[in-house]
Amino acid sequence: MELTGKNILGFTQSAKGEVLFYGVNPSTGSQLQTPYYQATQQEIDEAITLAENAFTEYRDKSGKEKAVFLETIAGELASIEQEIVAIGTQETGLPAGRLSGELGRTTGQLRLFASLLRDGSWVDARIDTADPNRTPVPKPDTRQMQIALGPVGVFGASNFPLAFSAAGGDTASAFAAGCTVVVKAHPAHPGTSELVGNAIIKAAKKCGMPNGVFSMVHGASIDVGQAVVRHPFIKAIGFTGSFRGGKSLFDEAARREEPIPVYAEMGSTNPVFVLPGALKENHQALAEGLSGSVQLGVGQFCTNPGLTIVPEQEEGSLFENILKESISDAESATMLTESIQRAYNSGLEKLKAKDAVASVSFGKKGEQQSQGVPEVLSVSANDFLSDKELEEEVFGPSTLLVRTKDKDEMIKIAKGLNGHLTATVQGTEADLAEYADLLKILERKVGRLLINGFPTGVEVCHSMVHGGPFPATSDARMTSVGTAAITRYTRPICYQNYPDALLPDELKAANPLNILRLENGKYILPE
Amino acid sequence: MELTGKNILGFTQSAKGEVLFYGVNPSTGSQLQTPYYQATQQEIDEAITLAENAFTEYRDKSGKEKAVFLETIAGELASIEQEIVAIGTQETGLPAGRLSGELGRTTGQLRLFASLLRDGSWVDARIDTADPNRTPVPKPDTRQMQIALGPVGVFGASNFPLAFSAAGGDTASAFAAGCTVVVKAHPAHPGTSELVGNAIIKAAKKCGMPNGVFSMVHGASIDVGQAVVRHPFIKAIGFTGSFRGGKSLFDEAARREEPIPVYAEMGSTNPVFVLPGALKENHQALAEGLSGSVQLGVGQFCTNPGLTIVPEQEEGSLFENILKESISDAESATMLTESIQRAYNSGLEKLKAKDAVASVSFGKKGEQQSQGVPEVLSVSANDFLSDKELEEEVFGPSTLLVRTKDKDEMIKIAKGLNGHLTATVQGTEADLAEYADLLKILERKVGRLLINGFPTGVEVCHSMVHGGPFPATSDARMTSVGTAAITRYTRPICYQNYPDALLPDELKAANPLNILRLENGKYILPE
Repeated sequence: MELTGKNILGFTQSAKGEVLFYGVNPSTGSQLQTPYYQATQQEIDEAITLAENAFTEYRDKSGKEKAVFLETIAGELASIEQEIVAIGTQETGLPAGRLSGELGRTTGQLRLFASLLRDGSWVDARIDTADPNRTPVPKPDTRQMQIALGPVGVFGASNFPLAFSAAGGDTASAFAAGCTVVVKAHPAHPGTSELVGNAIIKAAKKCGMPNGVFSMVHGASIDVGQAVVRHPFIKAIGFTGSFRGGKSLFDEAARREEPIPVYAEMGSTNPVFVLPGALKENHQALAEGLSGSVQLGVGQFCTNPGLTIVPEQEEGSLFENILKESISDAESATMLTESIQRAYNSGLEKLKAKDAVASVSFGKKGEQQSQGVPEVLSVSANDFLSDKELEEEVFGPSTLLVRTKDKDEMIKIAKGLNGHLTATVQGTEADLAEYADLLKILERKVGRLLINGFPTGVEVCHSMVHGGPFPATSDARMTSVGTAAITRYTRPICYQNYPDALLPDELKAANPLNILRLENGKYILPE
Repeated sequence: MELTGKNILGFTQSAKGEVLFYGVNPSTGSQLQTPYYQATQQEIDEAITLAENAFTEYRDKSGKEKAVFLETIAGELASIEQEIVAIGTQETGLPAGRLSGELGRTTGQLRLFASLLRDGSWVDARIDTADPNRTPVPKPDTRQMQIALGPVGVFGASNFPLAFSAAGGDTASAFAAGCTVVVKAHPAHPGTSELVGNAIIKAAKKCGMPNGVFSMVHGASIDVGQAVVRHPFIKAIGFTGSFRGGKSLFDEAARREEPIPVYAEMGSTNPVFVLPGALKENHQALAEGLSGSVQLGVGQFCTNPGLTIVPEQEEGSLFENILKESISDAESATMLTESIQRAYNSGLEKLKAKDAVASVSFGKKGEQQSQGVPEVLSVSANDFLSDKELEEEVFGPSTLLVRTKDKDEMIKIAKGLNGHLTATVQGTEADLAEYADLLKILERKVGRLLINGFPTGVEVCHSMVHGGPFPATSDARMTSVGTAAITRYTRPICYQNYPDALLPDELKAANPLNILRLENGKYILPE
């Protein structure tokens, strides 16, 4: 499959720009072959205008038609798995197995949204029927459901070239909501994005979807993304990446004449609280589990446990020793890009430059510059509490151990936390009873609370929340993983006194789609 | 009942400030007796700190306990109806009957949210159970529900001294969500607010709610409101009022270190499209209905039909004549405040200063300066389309008739509209079939679409949407009226691998609250 380096503007390809960039193989540092054409303002406008024009037709496709579209995309992607994995490994340094797995997650995600559409109940249909005899004024017939917002801008993420990129969770949920999509491909994996984008176009054509239902623009400059956010036809933005990147899009969107929602998942340190009883009973397994979670995917997950709070007790030292050994045995591995690796190193250096922070252990240095070396640092609770910078994310395979003298210090740390995607508590039954207040505090800090697990690994399902209070995300009311992500791209509308024939099927008296509805305050579930 | 003019800081009253202001009787222009103490920064901080401290306790009250609290507020309010109406009529110039009706709506709203809490299903409980045998990785147990955001700042609205003020829809939905509330009372009806605020405090004490569950600060200056929005403990804002006021709060919130959601309902022109068949069949009733809707409440509703699109045809002239007569017979009436009345007059003057706009008819001039005179203006579609200012809201009893030559002009007007709260289409069955594309266009422009009605009158029910695309509101994803308003003040959380005993009742295996849940992708509705 030949790569063209061109922007995908609906059903046509376009290469009008003069600015070129290239993918880079992070394992070798060498530039890949295909030149990518950074989209011009005109190309961006064209993609978004196509998306706007296609929206009118696409949003009116039935749930079943949209489901077939999502399933067809999944099928197209699965059919070119080898090609995707081949270019993906070159562009990202991720192993083939991981990319195959991620492709499976991506197609599974598309199929999950398809099943949501086939069920149809996600629209939250609400019906209050008329009462013409009510006094002092008659009661009107009102019916509410969720409808699509409009064209959506999606930003590919560096660390999930498939599951959070061209056909990832944002695109899947936006398509499911009835929105058309313009993807700004991540410049670290333009070839992977091109293959995936072409697969989406192929599926769109097969399914009779309108020209413009999907477009993809390339760019290594921040200007391309900002232009997408600024365009008046764009009605929402999905983004996964750094705090700096996400916050700048959020600010840009808030400055628009018509502000729009930005769903930016901006990273997290995912604190893990180890409680005394669990530490006592289980220090070995905990240390090994933590070591694995820290190293997983070279630590390049938003849910990497970057902060571990451990009581100072006998088993605390044992735990630390096992972790130390495990990490010093750990291999380095290629990181996604040179700049990510540089940021990882400088993040660690910044921490280690502080008097209060010590290096506990680090892994084997790799041969290449671009490899990330796993590392564990430590600090006392007291010092941690007096320096807000210690809570900042260092994206990569490291964790900062915070040693606490007593429960009081642990509670203080929890209370002082910023928003995070997750928090984990490792505890025995007795621990959990004694630390019930810790759990309540953490509830206000995160989108997902885990007991006796590790935060890496985000299940794609109906009940997942991959989100959390600022600065973990720009909008704690939403999740970017799981079927609840669909409501990021919808809003409610109310039809008053509509003749039945003009109502959408979801709200017609006979309930032809057989969906769950709230009728006059009562949930009605069809057989 | 004696008014004190003091700020309500939880269970205590406070008057530390030196800036005083007074309510004004708009019917007489005379200042009312009680001096109101503008809250100092210290008092604002105290109110919000109390709200933060109370939040931990309040959010954990059961749904039933919160329901009793809301019902007790409703009871307290109903028991002082006479006092509320007495001071309310003085402060707002609204007739007693209207205020009694609005109080009924306010208590009904509180009771509706109480019933939502008793049912309990609003939390959108989602459960995906574990599968330890799944390969390649075991499936965890994950459970999701909505939880409260934190302390909420609510701004009282001038035009609904009860239903959108101290105990109005924002407060009711925030309490229902589990949030504590700090109200910034509207300075145009401080006495009404004080009575209502005291009733809430009385209910809070009766129900054993924590000190700080509710506070209310006074202020005639924008600084008081800005200080509420800026406070780091405040996690969301509810506002109903002008575009300028709402947008400035939105901007302030976006500039915070931690941005927070602002739900600002900022007004709307609520276009009414009269289709040719309906005009032909029904011009008299339409003209009379429109005249009534324009004048209702001296036009001081967010849903006032400020824009009426009418085809140029024989019955168009008849329609206009009837409207003209009806309006010229109409009485003027006292508006809420002198500044609202001034803004109404200057809004009309600004329109009439345009060559393209003509005055069709106006009502009888009242004796007092503060009375609003109903007025109908007109403009051609062509001129309307070339001047965006003509779509701006003139808050008061007026409408601008836009005469269209053909369907094409009507469609152009619809396409060019900004976001509004509502749009109305008056049409026969044949009209509606012919203008199906108009309905589809309007769907993208508004929160509520009405057929053959008038937009004034907003039913408080499960399916209402009082919201709509910017600039009608700052967040089209939400409604400020109806039970769906509760999700403005909540966010989802996911519990992973939680022992059953530690889960909230909503998510426990046995479903002790008997609520609707999505279990492994299937909706389960208990008997």
